[in-house]
Amino acid sequence: MALMQIAVVPLGGEGTSIGAYVAEIQKYLKEQKLPYGLHDMGTVVEGDVGQLLSLAKKLHQMPFQKGIKRVYSVIVLDDRRDKKVSLGDKVKSVRKRLR
Amino acid sequence: MALMQIAVVPLGGEGTSIGAYVAEIQKYLKEQKLPYGLHDMGTVVEGDVGQLLSLAKKLHQMPFQKGIKRVYSVIVLDDRRDKKVSLGDKVKSVRKRLR
Amino acid sequence: MALMQIAVVPLGGEGTSIGAYVAEIQKYLKEQKLPYGLHDMGTVVEGDVGQLLSLAKKLHQMPFQKGIKRVYSVIVLDDRRDKKVSLGDKVKSVRKRLR
Amino acid sequence: MALMQIAVVPLGGEGTSIGAYVAEIQKYLKEQKLPYGLHDMGTVVEGDVGQLLSLAKKLHQMPFQKGIKRVYSVIVLDDRRDKKVSLGDKVKSVRKRLR
Repeated sequence: MALMQIAVVPLGGEGTSIGAYVAEIQKYLKEQKLPYGLHDMGTVVEGDVGQLLSLAKKLHQMPFQKGIKRVYSVIVLDDRRDKKVSLGDKVKSVRKRLR
Repeated sequence: MALMQIAVVPLGGEGTSIGAYVAEIQKYLKEQKLPYGLHDMGTVVEGDVGQLLSLAKKLHQMPFQKGIKRVYSVIVLDDRRDKKVSLGDKVKSVRKRLR
Repeated sequence: MALMQIAVVPLGGEGTSIGAYVAEIQKYLKEQKLPYGLHDMGTVVEGDVGQLLSLAKKLHQMPFQKGIKRVYSVIVLDDRRDKKVSLGDKVKSVRKRLR
Repeated sequence: MALMQIAVVPLGGEGTSIGAYVAEIQKYLKEQKLPYGLHDMGTVVEGDVGQLLSLAKKLHQMPFQKGIKRVYSVIVLDDRRDKKVSLGDKVKSVRKRLR
């Protein structure tokens, strides 16, 4: 399993706020079956690479449906095959080391 | 004020785990005065751009002190001058829209 | 049409060099029909978002076939629907402004 | 020595084009002494980490001087201490493997 972080940034919309687009994306994620979490700089989702990149395609295209003309998306995949990694595991493992 | 996300990835170390380096970085952040939060794909820190990039320099260099020979760091700055943004504000604002 | 930049970083391999994996990826790209270019920090490919993310999936998975256990990939999409953008156009347009 | 890739993305400006800001940044880089190259998805600069992040700070702040209210910058550092890496070396090394 892999983790994907994605940040979808609409360009050329009116004003500087992108919260409405992020909310739209969160609403969509809620209806999917993949575990995910929102943080201040993006969304982290757990799945296999095929699922994650299909989702990325969908999320990236959402602002165009709202009339946005240019979208800039930053996607990071962290994928390991030597052990199962689930959402939250990395933070837990670091906290354990800090005790 | 700006938010910075940083992920410091040591390359060429033994094995696939990088948790020890992440823990080191968290220990260092704890002693600094800038608000920060850890998530599964990186750390988000709040500050002005000068403070954030000085911190990035420090965090990026930490694995070298542990004998790592190559470090790959991904840094994202989100900086707005039209209103104050603090750590956690973006997530709160999106949640409000979802109610 | 969109542009994608992708950097596929294998973790936990022996030594610090990742050139062999990058060469593998370039060999594969050569056989595809999408325009692409290699620079020092990644590969830029032109296509529609579906093609680009299918390609990203393929490229991301290539180091696993060589025995690598963890792969970290950074993918950036720049996608505009208000005009056609081809590989090389952005650099040309900036150079024109600098004359 | 390290390589830095930087993409400075102004948000909330009029229209979808960001070429004018990129040209501004290239003009500035031309006057500096660090080797650099422009590609379709960003600029790659060679230097030590301190120089590179000072430069990143400067480049990130340039759109604000033009009235932009929000800037999103993506910075990637690839830094190795086991051998000297100069701009262009990685592409050359991959091409050699492909012959």
